[in-house]
Amino acid sequence: MSSATPDFTAPATLKARRLRLFTQHESIIVMRTDCHVCRSEGLSARARVLLIAGDRQVHATLFQVEGDDLIAPGEAALSEETWRLLGAGEGDPILVRHAPALASMASVRRRIYGNRLDEPALQAIVTDVVAGRYTNVHLAAFLTATSALPFDEAEIVALTQAMVDAGDRLSWRTTTVIDKHCIGGLPGNRTTPIVVAIVAACGLVAPKTSSRAITSPAGTADTMETLAPVDLDLAAMRRVVEAEGGCVVWGGAVRLSPADDIFIRVERVLDVDTEGQLIASVLSKKIAAGSTHVVLDIPVGPTAKVRSADAGERLAERLSSTAARFGLVARCIQTDGSQPVGRGIGPALEAIDVLAVLQGHPDAPQDLRRRACMLAGVALELGGAVANGEGEALADAVLADGRAWTKFQKICEAQGGMRTPPRAPLQAPVSASRSGRVIHMNNRKIATLAKLAGAPDVKAAGLSLNVRLGDEVAAGDPFLFVHAETAGELGYALDYANANPDLIEIEA
Amino acid sequence: MSSATPDFTAPATLKARRLRLFTQHESIIVMRTDCHVCRSEGLSARARVLLIAGDRQVHATLFQVEGDDLIAPGEAALSEETWRLLGAGEGDPILVRHAPALASMASVRRRIYGNRLDEPALQAIVTDVVAGRYTNVHLAAFLTATSALPFDEAEIVALTQAMVDAGDRLSWRTTTVIDKHCIGGLPGNRTTPIVVAIVAACGLVAPKTSSRAITSPAGTADTMETLAPVDLDLAAMRRVVEAEGGCVVWGGAVRLSPADDIFIRVERVLDVDTEGQLIASVLSKKIAAGSTHVVLDIPVGPTAKVRSADAGERLAERLSSTAARFGLVARCIQTDGSQPVGRGIGPALEAIDVLAVLQGHPDAPQDLRRRACMLAGVALELGGAVANGEGEALADAVLADGRAWTKFQKICEAQGGMRTPPRAPLQAPVSASRSGRVIHMNNRKIATLAKLAGAPDVKAAGLSLNVRLGDEVAAGDPFLFVHAETAGELGYALDYANANPDLIEIEA
Repeated sequence: MSSATPDFTAPATLKARRLRLFTQHESIIVMRTDCHVCRSEGLSARARVLLIAGDRQVHATLFQVEGDDLIAPGEAALSEETWRLLGAGEGDPILVRHAPALASMASVRRRIYGNRLDEPALQAIVTDVVAGRYTNVHLAAFLTATSALPFDEAEIVALTQAMVDAGDRLSWRTTTVIDKHCIGGLPGNRTTPIVVAIVAACGLVAPKTSSRAITSPAGTADTMETLAPVDLDLAAMRRVVEAEGGCVVWGGAVRLSPADDIFIRVERVLDVDTEGQLIASVLSKKIAAGSTHVVLDIPVGPTAKVRSADAGERLAERLSSTAARFGLVARCIQTDGSQPVGRGIGPALEAIDVLAVLQGHPDAPQDLRRRACMLAGVALELGGAVANGEGEALADAVLADGRAWTKFQKICEAQGGMRTPPRAPLQAPVSASRSGRVIHMNNRKIATLAKLAGAPDVKAAGLSLNVRLGDEVAAGDPFLFVHAETAGELGYALDYANANPDLIEIEA
Repeated sequence: MSSATPDFTAPATLKARRLRLFTQHESIIVMRTDCHVCRSEGLSARARVLLIAGDRQVHATLFQVEGDDLIAPGEAALSEETWRLLGAGEGDPILVRHAPALASMASVRRRIYGNRLDEPALQAIVTDVVAGRYTNVHLAAFLTATSALPFDEAEIVALTQAMVDAGDRLSWRTTTVIDKHCIGGLPGNRTTPIVVAIVAACGLVAPKTSSRAITSPAGTADTMETLAPVDLDLAAMRRVVEAEGGCVVWGGAVRLSPADDIFIRVERVLDVDTEGQLIASVLSKKIAAGSTHVVLDIPVGPTAKVRSADAGERLAERLSSTAARFGLVARCIQTDGSQPVGRGIGPALEAIDVLAVLQGHPDAPQDLRRRACMLAGVALELGGAVANGEGEALADAVLADGRAWTKFQKICEAQGGMRTPPRAPLQAPVSASRSGRVIHMNNRKIATLAKLAGAPDVKAAGLSLNVRLGDEVAAGDPFLFVHAETAGELGYALDYANANPDLIEIEA
């Protein structure tokens, strides 16, 4: 087919403008409704467009704006994610076109209709997801389809591989690299800094990359940041690990399984928990981090992620068998998930608990200490530092004699210098309305309360628990103290506590 | 549980600012990252928030912006959809909080895991969808789950009822109200204005509400608008129908099954076609419009929505049986969907075809005329204006003797005055690259070509076809002419034609 080519020059480029607009992972471009590119391309709101600047191409969702307030004629404004992916400079020319069809969505559609996906199909999907080509609609369809018909074993292995391949991969000059991970859902369960200190003090290598909180009141990186810098690049991280055998840094400088963060955000919105996605999520991060042995903490409880011992057992089996397919030794430990761990919930408040345990303070939360010793013990056995059955005792000794504390201080110094966690200026109690015994603590609502107080963005914010399951309380006794930086945040948290009497339940 | 209430006053309100930002159906609010409400509520990008202004409440998705360029401190900027739903004025105080959990999403999750939904569950979902409480993530999950496990008959009936109940409902002072609908996918199939004119000329009542194009190059309302005003409110529409027995107006002034437009937008993104959703979509609009008898045109062809006669038959059965549950008589007609109808594609170009048929012009496209006569004939029989088997002949006679044309002119005058469709200043041919017989016309690509030329926003834009299936062409003969208003649009369309030789295929 041929066509007459009339004399025309379509000025299809626009000047890039950084909007400093945060829209999470979905790339947005804002263009004027009267923009000549919208007209000539027939683009309307929510169209998917392809942006080209230099040698980079990015898919984005189009929003349109009317009038001159936001964008001048000839400009296109980019959200932060678009700006980052495109790597353009202010005023750079960008070309905007209809986005080509997403070929991998054909696989998602086949999956919706009940067909299994093979590795090439999953690779293509994960590649598109990481490149920002999937909108939330596409992501939700993929996650819903794989919840309606759960991933089978072959799919989980293929998905894990695809997620590893889509990011960076670390390697270490040692045959044994220890990792430790909690599948989450339990506030205050901040054993990682303690476990790393014990394991490194015993001569094993534990280069731990942790995440910041996505929806919880604190991630391990948030807590560790109140004790030392965590924002290390790969070279700096290597120097710390070579000197001290361990580190606890933020994983943000390296892109380990970057698809995971994107999937998780949409899963949280839908509140769908797919076991296959969880397994691929956890293992892809560990494999990409170059770990050879990993201890997995699976808290089990009525308001934890895993609700029953049977479910925990099944998850543990699938985690271990999938890990084995990648040459990774995974040991899963079911732990008590019926209530929060330690006293503090929130970055600094959890760090204070961690310090108390490491320093052997008589008032240190014993549940946190016991959990850390148990998990470190398994790691020590797994890494060959001690005979089976003797790990926990060694961990306990290394904590008791101060070796773990010394190692932890050295790690903090190597990461850039030890810090003192901040304290919030405002504290207010939430108290028992009647006397009785504490019979239930709602992990999810306690986490929400800490977030309303300002955690994790406000490092000192959160709450400190005064009671544990089984404690007897009198009417008026404080259950917990809310820590906040502003009266507004304190007020929001207290309002929530008042509105949710099932936060902590007592029985007369 | 009680809590100490400290002395604090949280200034939780912000001043509303209209951003004139078009984001389709999803409500957006833009707030500063350093906004005190974001801080005190712990809100981050993409949080779902509840906005309260006066007695109205709206759910919206939060985007955040850094710096002073976009929003002054104390302000919150609203997208057009948010602005419309909230009904606020510039500078009005709005309260922003975390959105409460969406109770109906529990039903969607149950549906993902394979449980059927009853009518109360579907009512709750549709109510939340129409109120703007579902994000695209929630919508995609609902639509994916009901594609993975298709709706059963009871669900289709319940969904149809829920979609009717969620919007306005018209009633007419007559026992027989004729409607006509094409399930779509066939460019140029603009029979509605002709059918309405014939049916009304024969004394039946046909108050037709039509939609504008969503993804096609022209909706019936777009085409009709080049011939007469279509933006009538309900009172004006009633006056037209009472005077002339029929009308062809835009359905936008009345909210007939408003959930439908929202579902359709997300379905298009996913490119999932669920038969149950299609049935509920079509029938809920007709039931809400107060129709008693409806003729449904189901084009069947390799690039039409329905690909085989069997699939068309099954769809027809399900449409008719579901309609019957609501006392609506539906007659489904499978028609040839192998190529576009008429010559013009685009609002004005289709209107020109419609006029040629109504005026009995010797050069009028006979395929459009035949289809309109057939469908009008069925409508006349269904409405009792003529004995079975005699409808098409009556329709033909009413067209031939000018009664339909007279009626159409009167309808146009009653709607506000007849107009002459505009003509585009630029036209350029797309020609055959070799000699042969036309063996395939790709409906989807032809529609895309017309859209690239500017349709439906540019009324005169689109294309006029010079060939039909089976025609013999010589190399260099024009297949079609692209009509455009600007050289840029013309260029885009011609580029697309060059890049897609399967637009129209020839065989030597």
